[in-house]
Amino acid sequence: MGVLDDLVTEFARLPGIGRKTAQRLTYHLLQQPSERTRALSAALTGVADRVRPCSTCGDFTETDPCETCKDPRRDDGLVCVVEESSAVSVLDRAGFRGRYVVLGGHLSPLDGVGPDALRVGLLEDRLREGTVREVVLATNPSLEGEATATFVQQRIAGSGVRVSRLARGLPMGGDLEFIDGVTLTHALSARQDVS
Amino acid sequence: MGVLDDLVTEFARLPGIGRKTAQRLTYHLLQQPSERTRALSAALTGVADRVRPCSTCGDFTETDPCETCKDPRRDDGLVCVVEESSAVSVLDRAGFRGRYVVLGGHLSPLDGVGPDALRVGLLEDRLREGTVREVVLATNPSLEGEATATFVQQRIAGSGVRVSRLARGLPMGGDLEFIDGVTLTHALSARQDVS
Repeated sequence: MGVLDDLVTEFARLPGIGRKTAQRLTYHLLQQPSERTRALSAALTGVADRVRPCSTCGDFTETDPCETCKDPRRDDGLVCVVEESSAVSVLDRAGFRGRYVVLGGHLSPLDGVGPDALRVGLLEDRLREGTVREVVLATNPSLEGEATATFVQQRIAGSGVRVSRLARGLPMGGDLEFIDGVTLTHALSARQDVS
Repeated sequence: MGVLDDLVTEFARLPGIGRKTAQRLTYHLLQQPSERTRALSAALTGVADRVRPCSTCGDFTETDPCETCKDPRRDDGLVCVVEESSAVSVLDRAGFRGRYVVLGGHLSPLDGVGPDALRVGLLEDRLREGTVREVVLATNPSLEGEATATFVQQRIAGSGVRVSRLARGLPMGGDLEFIDGVTLTHALSARQDVS
């Protein structure tokens, strides 16, 4: 029946939101002052109008270049390659203070994501500037992430800069009994001397 | 940082959506064509602009009176009282073909919802028309729903119409072992002859 159904349908397109939850969200908004609904609507339009990928690093931004690329206190010699925007703030919080390249996903031939869909060109542009000492591959610890890291590594193999990857091993708070075999194999082969 | 944060904040105001999920939804939209974000925004504005409570039954509607109130095939003698709009389609699907009054919530003194916040007046208006034979109290089977049903029952006590309530008992697919004591007590005391 018109606009209510439209809203349920649009909510249900979001990941992890089924039709029941979409209806619950819609009824919730109807019970609030309509300013809440308008505020969400305006925030969505604001994002659609003003957020674009940064032409330097590929991260989502309102300004181009983005705040991270403009920050003069960051080390230009260090570039971290990540799959998605969401990883940038996570790595910043973990203490990384270099530059980023956001690929915009991982290789996934079955979903039609080939090498051309990733922004490796931004990394190559940056390497051509000659200031980069080290590229840190920080793709996700998944099969697709590993394949993507290997692909990026091959693309920049001739550049002569150091290429590193995030260490793999046991996560904090884990229990050996529940750690998967691949992680345990990594943790064993990369074991570190403590003496 | 501006519009992205605004959108995360607005998403996180929705029930059952925390800050992490709000970020995930925001990043999801950024990865879609911006038409998806605009469609959700437009659906929200449509609801804020055009959906109002029906002046006859209190259900949310784009037209006043609503489709249900305008439907000539429904029995004017039967009025079902529910807490929320969401119950209307549920009862329709269960085969109810009378009229509705949507109270707009249940009595909840701790949340500041007193008798005046509920649309009992709509039910009294309808009773004054003289066509109603029976009022079916279909509030939720919760403490607040029971209290609300009792309150409505007292308000219309002098009207002389029959007042009924949805039967309480065992839900289909339940296992006696996991049925709560209150339900089981209801099911026992309202047991029906099968001979």
